[in-house]
Amino acid sequence: MEELLGQVALRFSRLPMFPFFDLAHYAASVLSLKEQPGAVDVSYRSPIACWFSAMLYCFGGSILSSLMLAEPPVGFLANTTNVLLASSVWYLVFYCPRDLAYRCFCFLPIRLLLAGMKEVTRTWKITGGIAHAHQHYKNVWLIMIVVGWARGAGGGLISNFEQLVRGVWKPETNELLKMSYPVKISLIGAVLFTMQHISFLPVAKPNLMLYYTSFLVITKVIMMLTDNAFTPLAPFEKVLVGLLFGLHPPCPEASEAKVPYNGASSDYDRTTAGETSDSVKRRHAKKTE
Amino acid sequence: MEELLGQVALRFSRLPMFPFFDLAHYAASVLSLKEQPGAVDVSYRSPIACWFSAMLYCFGGSILSSLMLAEPPVGFLANTTNVLLASSVWYLVFYCPRDLAYRCFCFLPIRLLLAGMKEVTRTWKITGGIAHAHQHYKNVWLIMIVVGWARGAGGGLISNFEQLVRGVWKPETNELLKMSYPVKISLIGAVLFTMQHISFLPVAKPNLMLYYTSFLVITKVIMMLTDNAFTPLAPFEKVLVGLLFGLHPPCPEASEAKVPYNGASSDYDRTTAGETSDSVKRRHAKKTE
Amino acid sequence: MEELLGQVALRFSRLPMFPFFDLAHYAASVLSLKEQPGAVDVSYRSPIACWFSAMLYCFGGSILSSLMLAEPPVGFLANTTNVLLASSVWYLVFYCPRDLAYRCFCFLPIRLLLAGMKEVTRTWKITGGIAHAHQHYKNVWLIMIVVGWARGAGGGLISNFEQLVRGVWKPETNELLKMSYPVKISLIGAVLFTMQHISFLPVAKPNLMLYYTSFLVITKVIMMLTDNAFTPLAPFEKVLVGLLFGLHPPCPEASEAKVPYNGASSDYDRTTAGETSDSVKRRHAKKTE
Repeated sequence: MEELLGQVALRFSRLPMFPFFDLAHYAASVLSLKEQPGAVDVSYRSPIACWFSAMLYCFGGSILSSLMLAEPPVGFLANTTNVLLASSVWYLVFYCPRDLAYRCFCFLPIRLLLAGMKEVTRTWKITGGIAHAHQHYKNVWLIMIVVGWARGAGGGLISNFEQLVRGVWKPETNELLKMSYPVKISLIGAVLFTMQHISFLPVAKPNLMLYYTSFLVITKVIMMLTDNAFTPLAPFEKVLVGLLFGLHPPCPEASEAKVPYNGASSDYDRTTAGETSDSVKRRHAKKTE
Repeated sequence: MEELLGQVALRFSRLPMFPFFDLAHYAASVLSLKEQPGAVDVSYRSPIACWFSAMLYCFGGSILSSLMLAEPPVGFLANTTNVLLASSVWYLVFYCPRDLAYRCFCFLPIRLLLAGMKEVTRTWKITGGIAHAHQHYKNVWLIMIVVGWARGAGGGLISNFEQLVRGVWKPETNELLKMSYPVKISLIGAVLFTMQHISFLPVAKPNLMLYYTSFLVITKVIMMLTDNAFTPLAPFEKVLVGLLFGLHPPCPEASEAKVPYNGASSDYDRTTAGETSDSVKRRHAKKTE
Repeated sequence: MEELLGQVALRFSRLPMFPFFDLAHYAASVLSLKEQPGAVDVSYRSPIACWFSAMLYCFGGSILSSLMLAEPPVGFLANTTNVLLASSVWYLVFYCPRDLAYRCFCFLPIRLLLAGMKEVTRTWKITGGIAHAHQHYKNVWLIMIVVGWARGAGGGLISNFEQLVRGVWKPETNELLKMSYPVKISLIGAVLFTMQHISFLPVAKPNLMLYYTSFLVITKVIMMLTDNAFTPLAPFEKVLVGLLFGLHPPCPEASEAKVPYNGASSDYDRTTAGETSDSVKRRHAKKTE
């Protein structure tokens, strides 16, 4: 039984991404771009900005990890076939007469299939990023995690700059301040595969790929069907955050800190350093005005 | 006759840019910086921000193409002579007593000469960028076009970040959303010279340089004299955009899409996927709120 | 006497930064992050954005100089010990029960000690940056100054993007438009050490390091005690700016320029180029609207 599972995992880990899974990734990415507020408008006002935005959605992870490792960020264009494939998908989704391509991709079973296949490519991207980082920095686990994460989470992490291309600027939020589910699960994946890579996790890579991908695909499909009501990470997150950062929402320190932004810190000054730190206090006060 | 033209083109293509054409490029760039709203004010409040902004105007193409090919973006500073030349021009234009230098450069014939000579440097930059990209990525035409474009369009493409240096932030527009004439013509030039480079265009490089530069200089001078009323690309653009993206301005899809930003897409959902895609629809609705 | 000073300077210049001075740098940086408006709030909402922000404060100079020289900006993560040290300081300052660590670091004598030691690391960073730039570009003084400055001024120069991580966006100001004292003094240090490096300044490197560091530490301590009333650079700056840029504050040109942003330039057009430049003028007017 275990041998059979190992066989399946090995075969699965050798699955080629090109062309079908890549195609699904492009389609799912371009669909989510088209559903951004204002994107259809941009596609009519400036096809070139729309195309560039679509490329950031499709190849964002590759661009971000190139930047992190000081490799040419235009490198992804060297893979002309993939760029043409992604551009065709972009063209069909945005400019197909009577919006046929978009309507067709939005048919629920097709949409679920695309989303599931896109999640499969995520695993491949994370492991690819980790292997790539390992070539540059042998066994530096922090860099392996960060590059794997960047490659897996893709466009998410650079969404502020992707939006800027379309003339949208939302500085008050970003994927680090309010992580979306794909960004979170990519981080977990990057940590797991890095631990596996430095032999910290006693599991074979093909098996881990199979387990992780199954988890990704299943949760994604359930989330799509239940309208995001299903959040598999929330309970673990709550416990972990509670343990590490002692975050009891109606915590007095936090609430104090919220009203006058660094009021809390001035209070502490007052009680500890007393008279002598008055100059420091005044300086802080001036800063916050 | 043809031989004579070939001779002229060959001589023209060997024209050295340093120092006169480079100087004209710096002067025209710094003049257009000074005419930006708020630039004079910044030059008095913070000479260093003004200088940095001027360098981004003068060497923007070089910086951008370095970033694209993962070469040191400070590399342009290694060419100390050119940096000192550009800095001198910046100093004269901004701080010359009684604004003499600026008044002098603004005298129409001089201004036309500077603008014409600046357009000549554009051709050299585009071909330089393409040759540079070819060294890194042999015959990858997409990268050659992109790097040639970045080098030619120069500061235009990074104008959002150049403005940020001066404390100005206009996220609602950028050179991809609303391309200016120099950015458009640089893109066309990059495409033409790349096609010539990969032997797709049956014309010698010196001849293409002569034709393209003549076109650049003549259109630029006419545009300056006619107050931008002359837009040589507009008719071709209209036809091309109409063919490729089916953009009939009062098109029902576009206008629908404009009112509620992705209202169009929700409509399509309703008609195609029907009841089953209701969860997807609700998710979209939530996103757009 | 002079020999004794030389001996002291030599010993001083061999002082190891790791671990105590590095630790003080991390503590002082994280403290100043915690005192930013909104930082405490972010630390509760998203520990990961807060951690990333803290890393930008601690390793900003290293990241910026890596970007400038096209080296991997994630390179600082390869020094796992230092990253863990900085992360521990961040954790203690932000999440220590009853805020003990922060209260303790805010005790004035400790705060002064940390600030003084942080200034010592600045000298080491500037000389390190200059030596690093020299490896890439032999004796290109402009690049040596810029990289030394970036390494020394650290997070300051990228503060706009550091703030963006925390969801704060203040485009109307940046460290080039309104340089803070550490950024200014780092620039002066970078110029001095570069001049020493290319044998333009007749002083031994250890001696210069001793003098410059003493100046840094003393001015920093006085500034903290006098509530920033002491500004050692202001008089020199005024003279230098007056000489170079002729900035007499109530200068008619400057005030004119301030009211209608480039009104001044249009005036000059009118008086010099007269009728013929009318088209140019109208174009400017259109731009400024």
